[in-house]
Amino acid sequence: MTEKADFLLTNAIVLTMDEELNQYDPGAVAISGDSILAAGPKDEINQSFQSEEVIDCEGKVVMPGLINAHTHVPMTLLRGLADDLRLDVWLMGYMMPVEREFVSPEFVRLGTQIACVEMIRNGVTSFADMYYYEEEVAKATAEVGLRAVCSQTVLKFPTPDAQSFEESLAAAEDFIKRWKDHSLIIPSVAPHSPYTCTDEILRATAELAAEHEIPLHTHIAETEVEVENSRNDNGMPVIPYVKKNNLFDAKVLAAHCVHIDIGEMHTLHHHGAGVAHCPSSNLKLASGAAPVSKMLELGLNVGIGTDGPASNNDLDMFEEVRLAALLAKGITGDPTTVPAATALSMATRLGAQAMHMDQITGTLEPGKRADLIVVDISPLHNTPRFHRDEVNVYSQLVYAAKSSDISSVMVNGRWLMRDQELTTIDHSDLIRQADEYAHRIDAFLVDREKSVLSKLVAIGGAMEGESFEVQVKVRIQDPDPVLEAINGPGLERLYDRHYHEYDVYFLFADPAQGILRYREDEYIDENGEISNVRYRLTMIGPTREAQFESDVLLSRSRYLAPATHSLRFYREYFVPSKEVIIEKDRLRWRVLFQGTEFYINLDRVEDPALGHFLEVKSRTWSRRDAEHKALVAKDLMEFLSAQSQETLTQDYVEIVTKS
Amino acid sequence: MTEKADFLLTNAIVLTMDEELNQYDPGAVAISGDSILAAGPKDEINQSFQSEEVIDCEGKVVMPGLINAHTHVPMTLLRGLADDLRLDVWLMGYMMPVEREFVSPEFVRLGTQIACVEMIRNGVTSFADMYYYEEEVAKATAEVGLRAVCSQTVLKFPTPDAQSFEESLAAAEDFIKRWKDHSLIIPSVAPHSPYTCTDEILRATAELAAEHEIPLHTHIAETEVEVENSRNDNGMPVIPYVKKNNLFDAKVLAAHCVHIDIGEMHTLHHHGAGVAHCPSSNLKLASGAAPVSKMLELGLNVGIGTDGPASNNDLDMFEEVRLAALLAKGITGDPTTVPAATALSMATRLGAQAMHMDQITGTLEPGKRADLIVVDISPLHNTPRFHRDEVNVYSQLVYAAKSSDISSVMVNGRWLMRDQELTTIDHSDLIRQADEYAHRIDAFLVDREKSVLSKLVAIGGAMEGESFEVQVKVRIQDPDPVLEAINGPGLERLYDRHYHEYDVYFLFADPAQGILRYREDEYIDENGEISNVRYRLTMIGPTREAQFESDVLLSRSRYLAPATHSLRFYREYFVPSKEVIIEKDRLRWRVLFQGTEFYINLDRVEDPALGHFLEVKSRTWSRRDAEHKALVAKDLMEFLSAQSQETLTQDYVEIVTKS
Repeated sequence: MTEKADFLLTNAIVLTMDEELNQYDPGAVAISGDSILAAGPKDEINQSFQSEEVIDCEGKVVMPGLINAHTHVPMTLLRGLADDLRLDVWLMGYMMPVEREFVSPEFVRLGTQIACVEMIRNGVTSFADMYYYEEEVAKATAEVGLRAVCSQTVLKFPTPDAQSFEESLAAAEDFIKRWKDHSLIIPSVAPHSPYTCTDEILRATAELAAEHEIPLHTHIAETEVEVENSRNDNGMPVIPYVKKNNLFDAKVLAAHCVHIDIGEMHTLHHHGAGVAHCPSSNLKLASGAAPVSKMLELGLNVGIGTDGPASNNDLDMFEEVRLAALLAKGITGDPTTVPAATALSMATRLGAQAMHMDQITGTLEPGKRADLIVVDISPLHNTPRFHRDEVNVYSQLVYAAKSSDISSVMVNGRWLMRDQELTTIDHSDLIRQADEYAHRIDAFLVDREKSVLSKLVAIGGAMEGESFEVQVKVRIQDPDPVLEAINGPGLERLYDRHYHEYDVYFLFADPAQGILRYREDEYIDENGEISNVRYRLTMIGPTREAQFESDVLLSRSRYLAPATHSLRFYREYFVPSKEVIIEKDRLRWRVLFQGTEFYINLDRVEDPALGHFLEVKSRTWSRRDAEHKALVAKDLMEFLSAQSQETLTQDYVEIVTKS
Repeated sequence: MTEKADFLLTNAIVLTMDEELNQYDPGAVAISGDSILAAGPKDEINQSFQSEEVIDCEGKVVMPGLINAHTHVPMTLLRGLADDLRLDVWLMGYMMPVEREFVSPEFVRLGTQIACVEMIRNGVTSFADMYYYEEEVAKATAEVGLRAVCSQTVLKFPTPDAQSFEESLAAAEDFIKRWKDHSLIIPSVAPHSPYTCTDEILRATAELAAEHEIPLHTHIAETEVEVENSRNDNGMPVIPYVKKNNLFDAKVLAAHCVHIDIGEMHTLHHHGAGVAHCPSSNLKLASGAAPVSKMLELGLNVGIGTDGPASNNDLDMFEEVRLAALLAKGITGDPTTVPAATALSMATRLGAQAMHMDQITGTLEPGKRADLIVVDISPLHNTPRFHRDEVNVYSQLVYAAKSSDISSVMVNGRWLMRDQELTTIDHSDLIRQADEYAHRIDAFLVDREKSVLSKLVAIGGAMEGESFEVQVKVRIQDPDPVLEAINGPGLERLYDRHYHEYDVYFLFADPAQGILRYREDEYIDENGEISNVRYRLTMIGPTREAQFESDVLLSRSRYLAPATHSLRFYREYFVPSKEVIIEKDRLRWRVLFQGTEFYINLDRVEDPALGHFLEVKSRTWSRRDAEHKALVAKDLMEFLSAQSQETLTQDYVEIVTKS
């Protein structure tokens, strides 16, 4: 009595990748419809099943398809755009501005198609995605015939596909409802990360995922800074924080988990959460190396992900599995940890478990969907083949095989590639379309990077309101007469302040670019203590508007912004050709003099030690007003006993660079 | 006026990889004979040169061939044989025993041919090798047409190709003299590593290399243990030690350098030594990660090597370059370190400098040999192509390109591969020949691993002399009467000793395998202090020879060996199914009693707390002698007042495991 099968893959090295790592050599796999009927020794399967299509796989491995547990597939279109940068510069300086400008349903569809072609060739049969317009990812993936968890991103900021988080949440729910019974796509929701969401978003997405029993996909503890900030802002590390916000009510897939401790691992384990380990991305962005040996020891479901192709820069799971095995050894100092068979399990069975889809895929077991790959391990670069130990074949696959050794790929019982020929997608025009996008993105960035100002605008930092000032500055030897005059009669003091200021000026090779100043302003209170620190970025325009005889200056234009990123960020983003640091102590008054409002700055420039300076300034709005104020300013200077030969028209940075 | 060229590669993205990273897009390269005439902008080159063979390289990169700065190419034949093991278990438990058995000129030739095919396909044009029968490596490499530094290994131990270091040194000198003017091969000498050589070998090899002005190739500071041992044995780290032994009289190529400090980097730099960074191998064997960012900063010539294919497990320089870039970021926490262009420089220009062959290769500059590759960066997995920044193309090559993207390879002006077809070697039979070796090696290891004893013999540890003993052991309550009898008249004490012994017994699932004992013997002197520690391995045979009525035992056979490796080594090598630890205090006498020599052991078993035991033993050589001694032993027991109901025939380990 033989049962009928649609396909019989026979004479293969069959690796079931089940929990016992059963393997059959020679083995066979019988497939009917979308599912596996049986996997076992060749003779046994051949006796039990018959099929019109019997495929001889001599010298080849038949195993479950690889599972890419974390990626952002449309980002194929941004691959190689900006590398060797810090996470924040890469993300906020390049990825986000470009995404704001270019991400559309069409962009997402094209990027997904490219990624699907690439992943099929690399032996991937399932992946977990997170992006914008996620329904387009789902459509393109289903058309090609791959399996995926497609997670619609929700963020507290406006995104390319939504003006508010409520909008993207509603879109996610709609998407989930319409796709939840699809044979290939598992729709999902992705609160992007704890630090880009709010408590409310975490709770709402968890509720949504729990209600529809779909996975929730997020980034967790990718960088040390994220954990530090969580401790500071929430009083606890990342995992306890998201737990507090009910995240584990849902079936969680947590990408990265680079910086979590044993207690947090136990929490993840207790709640059945899966982890997506992304070694290439974590190394490339210098985020660190996740403690996967420990996680696996505790029984966590740890899969392997490529992360998006803009931070990897490929979707090659063979490279990723190999690196997962190597890196674990390197960071623990134990070459026996994460042996080849374990690394391959992470990319198959454990990945499916991490994605909460192990009921349907991840191993070659009867009843599971037929998601499998045929790998030729006979090429010269994988020679010779040892048989002494059952682990030899895992070694071959993990340490020596390449994605180019994949010959055939089947998902859900359907061939997506046979003998290296793709069968479900016409990819002839994809490269041309991608290059068109690249051309437009290149032009956008070239234009943006032509000027420091447009780079500043691109990161959403600058308030473009210009300000014009009448200004006169003199060098003084002795500040005491000035202080006496200010404290005496003749002017009305509106308020006074005391600051200690650290300024870093970025200078550029082309002076027409202007100067960018990063200022750390320490506010000193009456007790002489620092009571507040403010970080500001000022773009100092290159040209002066006018200069009067009296050495009073109608100042250059300025663009002001709170400096929300670090000095380091701005340095790496703007790449100045020179930096000048100036530290000074500043006493500042707002006063009324002859009916006109002025700011008086009494500065002691400490580093470099330039001595004392007195500055008198007033905002202005017209040339006539400026001329009037210039005269009053001159009087004010006299009143402050600060007539000097050294009237200056220069900024401190100019005094320093010219000296 | 145009000059004649043999080949004109035109319309390419030409990356010269010279010090200024000049690139030309569209560019062209003109080649005549074995050398590059010019590389530059397409129009300029096309106007200056003419050739009958003009090759259009549109969409492809033309760049210097990759340089594999450290490998052991014949080890392709051992690829995947034993992975996920510690360095010592891997090396001394597997590689060296197999090499002792199988390495021959034929083995070396075949392994080299396989490696050459693989390396050409991976875009390697030059490599630095270190193995046995190195002349066979040189011959096979020259036949295929690759360029190599071929280093004959010299060790203080016998090797597969020499009984003594004098022999291999003489062979090296002979090899060097005959090959030193070869157009492709640079013969070299390789003192394997400081810890496997002697001062004399280091000095002699350095002198040889200096005399013939050829490079000296060695392994330096690969593991932390090596450095620790050097500090203990030589009173200094590895680099000062080899410097003291004149190593830097030669042009040194130092592989690994994982554990060197800034001072040692300065020494390497001062002496113009090159470093071969092997990231995959160092991670896989958990040796660590070399501080390449710091080395590069100091101006060291750091190349990249795959290391041997038995510890990698491939010869894929694209994987290695990518990993070098990623790992440096991961370990420094700085994602901007070792950017793509630097990583690719390491695999080209800097590699050639590290191998002391930068006069002839490593960049596309006029006058250098024509060693170049053509890489197709247009496949979908490397889409799209950005042009905004000159570094974009290095990103594509390092982070997204694969070795399968190499279309053509030229060395010394000769094509070795064109459009992915090899042109200089027939590789049709290599896989079959390699599998034949694998089959024999499998059989050898299967046979060896059938018995614990043969595994012990394989690592060269055991002295196979068996010993037979007459033995009687009793449990006693009170040691005092025994001590009185020993110190009283009636026997002659020849010597006495005091030991504290820690025994670890390895038990195996199959009892017929016997028991392996690892003993740490602390010798306690008259003052009660530990004056010496001895480590011994004893293989306790599974069967007893005979047992007499008087409970005197003709003991089982034993194989003794000094335990030169660590307990951890033996544990991982023998993989026992169970371990038993026994700690005891032992007083031991050699005595003459009734004219017969006996050993008396008075033991206090402390862990587990089994109490006191008295053992009487004598060596024997015949059944008759044994019978006689058994009677005397019984008398001796009575003399020692130790008649007891609990006469034992068991070893302590048996008492413990049965209780």
